Amino acid sequence: MNKLLIPVGLSNRHMHLSKEHIDILFGKDYELTNFKDLSQPGQYASNEKVDIVGPKGTLKGVRVLGPARKSTQIEISVADGFVLGVKPPVRDSGDTNDSPGCKIVGPKGEVEIADGIIAAARHIHMHTSDAEKFEVKDKDLVKVKVKGKRGLIFENVLVRVNPEYALEMHVDIDEGNAANIKSGEQVELIK
Amino acid sequence: MNKLLIPVGLSNRHMHLSKEHIDILFGKDYELTNFKDLSQPGQYASNEKVDIVGPKGTLKGVRVLGPARKSTQIEISVADGFVLGVKPPVRDSGDTNDSPGCKIVGPKGEVEIADGIIAAARHIHMHTSDAEKFEVKDKDLVKVKVKGKRGLIFENVLVRVNPEYALEMHVDIDEGNAANIKSGEQVELIK
Repeated sequence: MNKLLIPVGLSNRHMHLSKEHIDILFGKDYELTNFKDLSQPGQYASNEKVDIVGPKGTLKGVRVLGPARKSTQIEISVADGFVLGVKPPVRDSGDTNDSPGCKIVGPKGEVEIADGIIAAARHIHMHTSDAEKFEVKDKDLVKVKVKGKRGLIFENVLVRVNPEYALEMHVDIDEGNAANIKSGEQVELIK
Repeated sequence: MNKLLIPVGLSNRHMHLSKEHIDILFGKDYELTNFKDLSQPGQYASNEKVDIVGPKGTLKGVRVLGPARKSTQIEISVADGFVLGVKPPVRDSGDTNDSPGCKIVGPKGEVEIADGIIAAARHIHMHTSDAEKFEVKDKDLVKVKVKGKRGLIFENVLVRVNPEYALEMHVDIDEGNAANIKSGEQVELIK
């Protein structure tokens, strides 16, 4: 059987903002501006950055991704959590219940969120056709093998299938460094 | 069979210094002073700290471990390498050939090293009796399983057996965060 190879993408700290919070941080009816398209269709890194203020410290200039989402969500690494003084739970995107909050400071205002800070659980975006080829389905948990001196097998990797997705595995910077991989390198799905 | 459990220790950035470099950085015949014993018998975190200066930036206050070693070796994470502007190769302790160098600044002097910066390859210290129990030998490469939402299997984990060692697996901060484990937690050796 052919190997099931997937390009990896390392996610640095970033955030998604609700329309309501964009209004507060950047001004009424402000529209995020596209800095760079991301690999997932329709998603982009915006030019906009904000500061995140936690009980112990501040992360300055954290990039906002667009477009606006239903809820604000901040995705940081465990290492970033030490700087802020919060302990981000490892969660799938959208699952921010009982996660830590913080203050977000933008150029036009600031907002206090009660929750929303997570360390994103690693996951694979797949187009429907990729899922068919790989014989997996949405919400499956699979394993992914990385080769090399820091070779390892990531377990509990969430598969997310959508006709709008492009094939890519997302890990955070801690995970990328631990496996000594860079964005664009290939990893192998194993079942 | 019983599970083969091993306590884990997360190593933050640190360095080992040669006697010659201690003399330059802290003064002739200076002796490192014990801040805290480490889990490996005879090894200690010293009270002494130095700055590491790379082409792009500086890591301030990096702790020196004692006692003095034959060669100076600096163990940092891949993330630390971005701050310094160097790319530490993933290496076993002592293998610093062709690794990046830097300037080390101490209270009494400074020294330029041509090589010595590595990202330590994960490894397990074992007393001879542990190795017998686990049925492994010095320099074996084994796998280690970590449970949980960020569960993973570390491959290529070097076993180091010595009657002077205490049982402990060493990973760096990136690896600890990637697996969401803390020092003192148990991981499982699998073969």
